[in-house]
Formats: sequence, C-alpha cells, structure tokens
Amino acid sequence: TKRLNIALLPGDGIGPEVMAVAEHALTLLIDRFQLPLTYTSFPWPSHAWHQQHGHMMPEDGVKQLRSFDAIILGALGDPGPLDAPDRFVLPDSISLSPLLALRKQLDLWACERPARWQPGAPQYLSDPRANDVDMLVIRENSEGEYSNQGGRLRAGTPHEVATQVEVFTASATERLIRHAFERARQRAKQRPIPRHFKDEKSAQVCLITKRNAQPFWGDLYTETFLRLAREYPDVDTHHELVDAACMKFVQCPWRFDVVVASNLHGDILTDLAAVLCGGPGLAPSANLNPEDGSIPALFEPVHGSAPDIAGKNLADPRATLLSLAMTLEWLAHHHPALGNAAQHLHDTVNADLAKEGDTSPQHRQEKGTLETGQRLYALLAQ
Amino acid sequence: TKRLNIALLPGDGIGPEVMAVAEHALTLLIDRFQLPLTYTSFPWPSHAWHQQHGHMMPEDGVKQLRSFDAIILGALGDPGPLDAPDRFVLPDSISLSPLLALRKQLDLWACERPARWQPGAPQYLSDPRANDVDMLVIRENSEGEYSNQGGRLRAGTPHEVATQVEVFTASATERLIRHAFERARQRAKQRPIPRHFKDEKSAQVCLITKRNAQPFWGDLYTETFLRLAREYPDVDTHHELVDAACMKFVQCPWRFDVVVASNLHGDILTDLAAVLCGGPGLAPSANLNPEDGSIPALFEPVHGSAPDIAGKNLADPRATLLSLAMTLEWLAHHHPALGNAAQHLHDTVNADLAKEGDTSPQHRQEKGTLETGQRLYALLAQ
Ligand SMILES: CC(C)[C@H](C(=O)O)[C@@H](O)C(=O)O
Ligand SMILES: CC(C)[C@H](C(=O)O)[C@@H](O)C(=O)O
Repeated sequence: TKRLNIALLPGDGIGPEVMAVAEHALTLLIDRFQLPLTYTSFPWPSHAWHQQHGHMMPEDGVKQLRSFDAIILGALGDPGPLDAPDRFVLPDSISLSPLLALRKQLDLWACERPARWQPGAPQYLSDPRANDVDMLVIRENSEGEYSNQGGRLRAGTPHEVATQVEVFTASATERLIRHAFERARQRAKQRPIPRHFKDEKSAQVCLITKRNAQPFWGDLYTETFLRLAREYPDVDTHHELVDAACMKFVQCPWRFDVVVASNLHGDILTDLAAVLCGGPGLAPSANLNPEDGSIPALFEPVHGSAPDIAGKNLADPRATLLSLAMTLEWLAHHHPALGNAAQHLHDTVNADLAKEGDTSPQHRQEKGTLETGQRLYALLAQ
Repeated sequence: TKRLNIALLPGDGIGPEVMAVAEHALTLLIDRFQLPLTYTSFPWPSHAWHQQHGHMMPEDGVKQLRSFDAIILGALGDPGPLDAPDRFVLPDSISLSPLLALRKQLDLWACERPARWQPGAPQYLSDPRANDVDMLVIRENSEGEYSNQGGRLRAGTPHEVATQVEVFTASATERLIRHAFERARQRAKQRPIPRHFKDEKSAQVCLITKRNAQPFWGDLYTETFLRLAREYPDVDTHHELVDAACMKFVQCPWRFDVVVASNLHGDILTDLAAVLCGGPGLAPSANLNPEDGSIPALFEPVHGSAPDIAGKNLADPRATLLSLAMTLEWLAHHHPALGNAAQHLHDTVNADLAKEGDTSPQHRQEKGTLETGQRLYALLAQ
C-alpha cells in the first residue's frame, strides 16, 4: 500500500487550538484503523512569520505543501483591529488575506461546503423543517470578486476613485458549473428524493447570480449554466438572485440541494448555511482541484482565526474534526481503512452532538476546546 | 400651505396590485387628515413600455417625476425565466435593471431600510431576543458593485473574459458614511439605550466591508469610516466583514443599530434583515438624496415585482403601506397633518398585525391582497 502524507497547518488565532485536537484524534484513528498514513505539522503562524521574514510562510512553503497528499488547515490570517488590516504584501505584491493567496497558489479552484443540520445542533431557525437542511454549496475559489485587481487612484484624497475589478473567465466558469452538476448527480445516487423537493428529480442545482445588477458575469454564468444543463437532463435546475437566495436560506433552506456560486456570493452563502446548521463551530470545508489529482486538497473549518477568542479554550474543535473526516473520506480510494476511519470520526462527532438536550441557541452552554476533545477521544477509542 | 404632489408608479409584476391598496389608503388619509396633498398615477409598466417604445418609460419620464415632492413605486423589472433576462438597453446603452437605472437617474444615493420586528410578525428565528431587532441599514445606492462598468471580451467563446468593475469614489463614500453617523445620532435621541447594546453609547454604526478580499475599496471605506468616527465621539463604532455580518444577523441581530454598507452588501443584508422581521411583505424602504432637498425621495417595498405571484391576489400590500407611511413622515416638515397621518397608518398596520395569534412561519395563513386592504381601510377610517 502507498503511504500517504498529510500536512497539518495550524496557522493563526484559534487555529493551533483546534488543530491540536484534530492531531490527537488523527493519532487515535491511525492507531485504531492501522491507517497507511503519516503527517507533518508546519508551525507557520502567518503573522509572526510575516513580521520576521516578510512572507506569510517560507518562500518554498507552497512547494513543500504541494508534495503532500492532503492539507489540513486550522486558520490563516487575523483581521485584528480596524486600523491594522489583515494583509500581506506577498512577493508578487498581491495584498490580501493569506488564505486567499494560498488557495490561489495551490490552484484549488472549487470550494465545497456541505451544510446538514444534525440532531443536537443549535437551531437558529424556528421552523422545524429546517432540521432537514442538507445542501452542498460549491463556491468558485480562484477568481471573480476576489481577483484582487484594481487600485486606488488619488488614494486618500477627496478625489479618490477606487476600482475593484471582478474578473470571470469562461474556462473557470465552465469547470465550476460542470463540477456542480457532477456532484449533484453523485449526491442523488446516495439517497432517495428529499421530501421537500418540488420536482421529481432527485438531483438539483441552483445557480446564484446578481444578473439584474451585474450583467457581464451574470450573463456568462447564466449562459454557461443553461448550456451545461442540457447535458444533465436528470438534474433539476433553479436560479436565484443572491439577495433572494439569502432570504430563502432563512425561509426555506430545506429546498436546496447543490448551490453553485461565485467567490463572494459563495463566501456569504456558506457562512449563512453554516449558521443554519448550528453555527461555524460545526462547519467543515474542502478546497479542491477536481481536474488535477496531483494537487493536494486543503481542508479547513469555515470559522477562520477568530482572534477575539484565541487562547481562551473557547473554540469549538468539531469543525476541524469534521474537516479531518472529509480529508480521510477524500483519500479513501487509496485504502478502505481510510473510509472506515472517516465514517467512525463523523459518526462519533454526531453521536456526541445528539446527546445535547436543549437545541435553542440561547440556552447553549459552550464547552471548552480541551473538554470537547477529551470527551471525543474517549468515544473515538471505544 | 404649499400643496404637495406625489407620483405613484405602480410598475411591473405585483406592483399594480399593492399600489392599488396604497392608493386607496392614501385617499382615505387625505380625506381624514385634510392633507395638503394630491397625487398622480403613472401607468408605466416598464416591460410593456419597453416593448412598444424601446424605453422603460417615456423619454421625459425622469424629468416628469423630478417635479414631484415624492415618488412611491410598486416594483420595477421582471426577472422572468432564466433565458429571458430582465434588462433594458437604455438610451445611454446601459443595460441593467430599470430600477437601478431610475435610482441613478434621480441621483438617490442613499437607500434606507429600517428593520424592526413587530408583534404578530412571522418569527423565523428561534431566539426570543430576535423580537428586539430594531436596525436601520443604510445602503449605497449609486455606484460600487452596481456601477455597471465592464464588459465581455470574446463573449460566448471558450476564451471569454468578463469583467465587472466596481467603482467607488471618495465623495460618495464620505457622504454615505456621514449620513449613517447622522442617522445614528438622530435615532439615539428618540430612545433609551437598547438593552442588548454592549456599550454605554446609545448610538451605534457598524461598517460592512470585505476588506480582507477586496482591499481597494475596503481600504477607502475603512479609512473614511475611521476618520469620520472622530467627529462623532458619541457614536459607538463597529466593523464586520460581510460574511460574518450575515451570520450575526441570524445569530444576534438585536445587537445592530445603524448598519452602513455598499450597494451589493446592502442589497444582501437588507433582504436578510427583512426576513428577520417577518418577511419581505412587511419591509419598506426609502431612496434618498439627503443633500439636495429638491430631489423627490422614492419610497418602495423591498420585495420587488415577484412575477411568480403576480395577478393572483397573493401579494402582501403592507410593505407598500409602510412605504407610504415613510413618505408622509418624510414630508411631515411641510405640515403637521402629514406626520399625524403617517403615524396613524403606521399604528394601524401594526395594530392589525398584532392580532395575529401564531407567529410561527409554518402555521401562517396568507391573506389575499384585497382582503388585507379591506381590513385595513376599515381600521384606517375608524
Ligand atoms: C478569510 C477570508 C478571506 C475567507 C474568504 O472570504 O474566503 C473566509 O471568509 C472564508 O470563507 O474562508
Ligand atoms: C431589482 C434589483 C436590481 C434591486 C437591487 O438589487 O437593488 C432589488 O434587489 C432591491 O434590493 O431593491
């Protein structure tokens, strides 16, 4: 059997705290399932590194990471106070969040964020049908609103004009939307038609745009979607404007299956989807390049570095544990033990969650990072 | 006393249905409060007009509207099916929603959308503190993401590059943020410190950006906000990234007071805020030019043309009635009777709403447009 290597990147803020729990869980799983897997941890807190070296990580950092089979990230970046922006001038003088830089440098163009409410999770919505939420948001991860093109003309003067150029290409749009159709098909194979779907097809893709206000890429997305839809007659298609989609995520999230969205729209919708499923402490994600199997996927909790609670033992490590489960699942084609370990971790987190009595957010007692870890280690070993 | 003139623009989709109710209510109020007010209705359904004449309204339409003291709009535009885009080629070959064109042509750069949960309104959130939601989202209405600049290079080919250029100017940013601070001050004068505020100041402004991914205008907004904040030491200041803000709108919306956001961010946040307060059927809005008193403000329900329910007597006319109340309030400095009429209309809609027994969305029985109107006319006349 091929030995697999995983890179752990604890990063900034609460990243190291949640990663410590994931690392311990991983050692337990390697042991219990005899996984053909080793891991290496890279202590590269991007802020400290940047202060010392002028880069967010060693100059050959991305190259080092590329040689792994998968990467698990805690968090990167630290928004800090408003007058100390979270940004780096990278060698290519791109100045933006180090996380966006890393995704682009690794060419991980698809971001998958599953959102499924699990028994025991906080219920922010009052409608009991919201317990049936089970969607997958697929977010464009390489261009669009976060292309970081533009600039500030006459910066800081009363006559300043700042431009932020959103760049969308046909090739990135096509691969993204095709991937969404493929994933909708795969999901449909694994379950009966969800009871809240209005139509008789088990697979559904909803395209998000703001084409009535942003026509240029709105048209590109719409035309690509309509064209590809013809190749997937088994998939039911919908369209929502992003503002209406946010409303429907609160009013009737159980109607959605696969949702495909641009970088910014996907960013917004996945945070919203995370909270519908109990909050960011339970939301994992995957950054993928579905076309190139040699590029390691990067898995991370949706929550980010959360500097306000860093170092306080308050971070929920479960989003990172669920990201670890996604990692093992993604590698499972290499060896069945990986799939078994993924399933065990996933089931354990959910079985523990199901023991929560009161799911109303206002009665929630948050448990400490370490305590949650301890509780889960015991269950994982059983 | 100066006689005031209001223009009614029923528009498209459900616009004429909800406007019919508002018009009838207006006649009752004129009569009861002896308002120094006349109105003129402009039957310009933008789609039909465009088909016949190639424009969304008569060529001197905007000029006609400018001569009024205020404008009330039902809805403009019709998204229609995905392959029939809601767009017009206007004389200046801008192609986008007719509503955006109208706002720009009238130079209404500030959009105000109050969001306050009222007893009896559907409760989409489970946390009872959500009943205390009382915020005002102030949205940039003239530039930014909806500047409609850019284009499609090699459109329709596999090598297409579509660009959508977001243009932000210092002058539009400064007037927007200053207006937000002013409004926060005004609101604070009218009430005690809300019990959920964390700090001792009664006025609060929260700036929204995505500065860690869209640095150019993110910096312009941030710097302007920090600079103006020094002029308003009585106003407490916060900042949220737009994705985190969406999450917090669901997790703890009662913490927000005035929220100031760009065109797209404001669009998204106001739809979300509307649903937190019971849905789009209850959400009014104002489009203003706070600097130039000669420009008529335009008031409209947040919901839009909703073509799927048009002609079915299903539209909730209350968002338009509340928009009418905002109109009268806005004109109240001309004559005290206008303020009284605004208050009466506002109180009547809320008193009627408060009679709803069950506020869980899943048990809600929607009433017809006409029936809601009839019920409210009787109460308005009392
Ligand atoms: C940190 C930030 C740049 C990032 C993003 O917007 O992609 C985060 O919000 C996320 O969703 O992973
Ligand atoms: C119709 C559309 C262009 C409009 C907007 O985005 O401004 C609408 O969504 C709104 O919020 O009033």
